Amino acid sequence: MRYQRPKGTADILPGEAQKWNYVEETARMLFNDYRYQEIRTPMFENFDVFSRTSGDTSDVVTKEMYDFKDKGDRHMSLRPEGTAGVVRAFVENKLYGPEHPRPVKVFYMGSMFRYERPQSGRQREFHQIGVEAFGSDEPELDVEVIAMGMDLLQQFGLSNLRLEINTLGDQESRDAYRQALIDYLDPHFDELSDDSKVRLHKNPLRVLDSKDKRDKEIVKDAPSILDYLDEKSQKHFDRVKSLLKALNIPYVIDPDMVRGLDYYNHTIFEIMVDSKALGDGYTTICAGGRYNGLVEQLGGPEMPGIGFGLGMERLMVLMEAQGVKFPVLDQLDAYVVGIGEQTSVLTLQIVQALRADGFAVDRDYLDRKPKAQFKTANKLNAQYTITVGESELENKTANVKQMRTGKEVTVSLASIFKDFDDIIAKYFTDDEEID
Amino acid sequence: MRYQRPKGTADILPGEAQKWNYVEETARMLFNDYRYQEIRTPMFENFDVFSRTSGDTSDVVTKEMYDFKDKGDRHMSLRPEGTAGVVRAFVENKLYGPEHPRPVKVFYMGSMFRYERPQSGRQREFHQIGVEAFGSDEPELDVEVIAMGMDLLQQFGLSNLRLEINTLGDQESRDAYRQALIDYLDPHFDELSDDSKVRLHKNPLRVLDSKDKRDKEIVKDAPSILDYLDEKSQKHFDRVKSLLKALNIPYVIDPDMVRGLDYYNHTIFEIMVDSKALGDGYTTICAGGRYNGLVEQLGGPEMPGIGFGLGMERLMVLMEAQGVKFPVLDQLDAYVVGIGEQTSVLTLQIVQALRADGFAVDRDYLDRKPKAQFKTANKLNAQYTITVGESELENKTANVKQMRTGKEVTVSLASIFKDFDDIIAKYFTDDEEID
Repeated sequence: MRYQRPKGTADILPGEAQKWNYVEETARMLFNDYRYQEIRTPMFENFDVFSRTSGDTSDVVTKEMYDFKDKGDRHMSLRPEGTAGVVRAFVENKLYGPEHPRPVKVFYMGSMFRYERPQSGRQREFHQIGVEAFGSDEPELDVEVIAMGMDLLQQFGLSNLRLEINTLGDQESRDAYRQALIDYLDPHFDELSDDSKVRLHKNPLRVLDSKDKRDKEIVKDAPSILDYLDEKSQKHFDRVKSLLKALNIPYVIDPDMVRGLDYYNHTIFEIMVDSKALGDGYTTICAGGRYNGLVEQLGGPEMPGIGFGLGMERLMVLMEAQGVKFPVLDQLDAYVVGIGEQTSVLTLQIVQALRADGFAVDRDYLDRKPKAQFKTANKLNAQYTITVGESELENKTANVKQMRTGKEVTVSLASIFKDFDDIIAKYFTDDEEID
Repeated sequence: MRYQRPKGTADILPGEAQKWNYVEETARMLFNDYRYQEIRTPMFENFDVFSRTSGDTSDVVTKEMYDFKDKGDRHMSLRPEGTAGVVRAFVENKLYGPEHPRPVKVFYMGSMFRYERPQSGRQREFHQIGVEAFGSDEPELDVEVIAMGMDLLQQFGLSNLRLEINTLGDQESRDAYRQALIDYLDPHFDELSDDSKVRLHKNPLRVLDSKDKRDKEIVKDAPSILDYLDEKSQKHFDRVKSLLKALNIPYVIDPDMVRGLDYYNHTIFEIMVDSKALGDGYTTICAGGRYNGLVEQLGGPEMPGIGFGLGMERLMVLMEAQGVKFPVLDQLDAYVVGIGEQTSVLTLQIVQALRADGFAVDRDYLDRKPKAQFKTANKLNAQYTITVGESELENKTANVKQMRTGKEVTVSLASIFKDFDDIIAKYFTDDEEID
């Protein structure tokens, strides 16, 4: 019986997984420079954790949650995004306590799940990297988070990036805008799409987000949030803009940006990229914003928060499309060739001794002829071969060959066991060191 | 509303997650030395993938699978272990093809899931690191895999390890032994536990594994697999033993070891440790074995395989119990202190400039007084503080202080932006470099 991976999932195979790991390691190092520390939360949570935070009218909750009843009849969901679980963990583990210097800054990376309609072409298991910072209301933190997102994408070697920002203001500004939007949209009610009709009174901002053509036409002349900001919200946004300028980070303002989840307020942003590999024109590669109130909503104290997330799958597609060079991460230092069955113990000993010294080394495990072994050494891009046959076995020597130059020497087995680096330095000095 | 993580799951918090990452990175480097490459498979698979491979009578399938019906009414299961998914991916992606040098060697790390009875105290989401090697039947590969397991645990700084090995022989040996075991157990049928009664004719080897006291008593005098090995199986096992000796890897033979999953044959092994933190006496920390036949069972060609897995949770407990020192992985190089509101732009610029040069740097985001900022710098173990106040702002200078020695200098802002390493080298030379 042959089995297939579940619909909407992917295998990340050797080679490809190394690229993923390189991306994750690069992110880890950058996050460390910004003093963001890793947090890991469960793959699934109680359904309510996501439904409460994402908002009843979000696509995530209404259509896409990968939820199920567990054997104890609990309503669970595989996590659709990273923030809600992190906030739940932040509250439950009291990371808001005075012993944790604020802002508390964390990052996560891992699998997320949505039960997408198959025709959408999107994956049911996908992967995100994200950051969250709790406990500071200052625009400086908004800018740190945005700068870190830009920094991250640039570290990956990406170009053609565009930062778009907007503000949703605080609750008061948002309430005022909400009313203005309803007042504007109500006369158009009959023309709206079914989705938007539902959303109009529940969450009219989401109508701005609609991909429906007629909705878009109607929305074009809708009032702008930027005209409904109260003084505090306006000041916050102005400060964000001036700090971005001070850091020489170019941006454009998109007053129609609302983001897909209900919990955002104040600054929201998307880093977009113009790449045919991801679609026509500029598409989003990294997005985030402030979510003051979310910590409270999940039972914590009043505590502001801000974060961003980026999708690994899109990132990898983009890096390939932009021709980003990945470093060679799996170089094989040496391949040990054994000629004749009786060398098998010795070659295993050599392989193990060199690995213990930190070299990446391999040998044959198929009892193959020398020719086939050398072919594999070549295919694996081994820098050196170390060959032992009957005569070497007798003389306690080995032949060391540098594959690139073809240069070879015969050395004592003892010297290989003692220090292979020494042999390289002594006989292959005009070449680069390996390690 | 306050939410809790789901029963049987854990949050891995900042600090703790860094230790996890250190362990994973150490494993990655070691696996690379052995030319094992990462593979990532989905968090869930079709239920059959696991039920077919683990065996109908295994606890995993009968009691512990975290399975559910998805919204398309498919019977899915969160993965209970790593091997089945890797083999499924190996077959589906044709990694057995001639373009992949054999043995194909892969590793994985990540979440696994079992719907444990809550009273067992075991987690519903837990984590494993594992390796698999496909395409070689040689005892040399068995020994490589065992040696790698030992090497890994020693790299983590663990001691009091004991390697136990056994063989289940090939299919013929196993069939002969199976019959002998049934012949022995049948007269004791009425005395066996209910679980063992069920298993007796389905999979009598599992009875050897029983934790039931009376079962244990009966099993004590059962025949040993070692007396039923055919010549080929005996030769394979003898070779494994002699190669372990050649590599100076001590072992003991445990003829009652069967491992919990049905797919094993030939060499099986457990690396055990004597640590009160994990239980009384020696308990298993890493286990694996050969599973020739599993690739075929999942629709692939006839192709031998072998691997091991180890549980992260137990490993972390053990490392703590044995007092393993983790390296400091999150050192903060500098904390930038701003005195007065008008320094906020400058401190953000300094922070960003140093981060761009690869330093780990932070600043205040709570508009706090200098004293509180210095306190945070201390708490975060910053190596240096860089302070700017009104006079520094005017003079375009900053005060750099080495926290450990208290030594401080005033330098130009330009020199900080240009090369902070230079400042350290120039003024704090008798101290270690940072980077």
